[in-house]
Amino acid sequence: MKKRTAFFISDGTGITAETLGNSLLTQFEGIHFEMITLPYIDTLDKAQNVVEKINSATAQDGELAIVFDTIVNPAIREKVASSQAFKIDVFESFLKPLEHELQLHSSYSVGKSHAINESSRYKERIASVNFALDNDDGGRIQQYGKADLILVGVSRCGKTPTCLYMALQFGIRAANYPITIDDLERSGLPDVLMQHRNKLFGLTIDPFHLAAIRHERRPNSRYASLEQCEFEVREVERRFAQLGIGTINTTHFSVEEIATRIMADAGLTRRIV
Amino acid sequence: MKKRTAFFISDGTGITAETLGNSLLTQFEGIHFEMITLPYIDTLDKAQNVVEKINSATAQDGELAIVFDTIVNPAIREKVASSQAFKIDVFESFLKPLEHELQLHSSYSVGKSHAINESSRYKERIASVNFALDNDDGGRIQQYGKADLILVGVSRCGKTPTCLYMALQFGIRAANYPITIDDLERSGLPDVLMQHRNKLFGLTIDPFHLAAIRHERRPNSRYASLEQCEFEVREVERRFAQLGIGTINTTHFSVEEIATRIMADAGLTRRIV
Repeated sequence: MKKRTAFFISDGTGITAETLGNSLLTQFEGIHFEMITLPYIDTLDKAQNVVEKINSATAQDGELAIVFDTIVNPAIREKVASSQAFKIDVFESFLKPLEHELQLHSSYSVGKSHAINESSRYKERIASVNFALDNDDGGRIQQYGKADLILVGVSRCGKTPTCLYMALQFGIRAANYPITIDDLERSGLPDVLMQHRNKLFGLTIDPFHLAAIRHERRPNSRYASLEQCEFEVREVERRFAQLGIGTINTTHFSVEEIATRIMADAGLTRRIV
Repeated sequence: MKKRTAFFISDGTGITAETLGNSLLTQFEGIHFEMITLPYIDTLDKAQNVVEKINSATAQDGELAIVFDTIVNPAIREKVASSQAFKIDVFESFLKPLEHELQLHSSYSVGKSHAINESSRYKERIASVNFALDNDDGGRIQQYGKADLILVGVSRCGKTPTCLYMALQFGIRAANYPITIDDLERSGLPDVLMQHRNKLFGLTIDPFHLAAIRHERRPNSRYASLEQCEFEVREVERRFAQLGIGTINTTHFSVEEIATRIMADAGLTRRIV
């Protein structure tokens, strides 16, 4: 397969350039993109080093490297722009029309990086991560009153990473509770969950997939057997349906897809941007 | 302050539109943006609903809503484009020039959404989240051989959320170890850490800030006293300097800034994109 090198370059975290560039490049099949993120390019020396990296990739590939950049500092941008590459300057493309529409100069166009006060965001995030950790895996149930959301599902269906993602990205306080065999021997769902019925969201998973995941954890156990997985998933799904609990099947989704779909379905809005 | 409404709309997670839109809008001071993310707009009915939301925001603000969209489906895009808004069509702006440079049609321009195989990415991510949880807070030390990174620092300086962020976003296996008063009574760092000297990265924090954070956890305790925080931070920083361990002061940074700076400083590359 043909190979091209793509660079995501920023004087900040590089997350915007990386996210955008990745979205755009995945629209092209038939090319293998070697993707390189270079964050915190905030001096001319670092920019010179970047130029050399880009030019060397272009020389090696025999075709122009693709460069996505979100550099605010004009001198550093200019330096990076001097490289031999196909450049997509994210800020330049969109800030001019936005300035016109908003009738304002952006801090970018006046050459000043915009410092965001991160401290309240940080605190909110830490608080929600701590909440997710404290309330992981049914460990504690006293704080369910403070939860934005309680994810329920069988063991190993993806509850923990989903809770953590929602905490980190959205500041959402998400607890999770694993439905065990003991719970399934009774009808309905445990009382502790039913008291917070409106906060429940169910995760389900394809039993084959579940068995494979559990098998990695406890090979050849009853816990990992297909029979057991099929039983648990069927019983859990039946209860979700009976109680009218919103559910998502996690089998073919990434953590961010699961998290964003739950946000939308449960009508939650992020606490941090 | 003047208020405008901004929408981030996608037939996928909306993360790209949201990340890009947020980066661009933070460049404008003096306007309060009410930001609304609408993911998974994948039917014409949902799109019609979105049009109504946008038009209602425009009517209420008395100025055009700002719309960032990354919708792949052409019929749905067209529907959303019929709203009264100032539109930034992310794919349209950049995919045409990229198609020309790459000499390929994108799946976008042929009207086909590109399905990414998420399953290996999901597994990698789950594995690294589990690693971070298993190796949180010095709980276990036997797996340090498998770690990509071991974050060290005093209690409450931001180790856990940083490890989790790196696991979720980059697939990095990051353990963390809290340096306690007991550790500080001896010289250097604990043996278990010195055995993995090349994996260590130090987090530090402003003692005033640390005292405030600890105070929320254990009000009026010795643990939260400024004197204690100053002592711990000074001692830890001295050890980092003596041993030549890379450090970052977390006080004014967001979790993503801390994580991306550590990646860059420690020369780590992400395991997932």
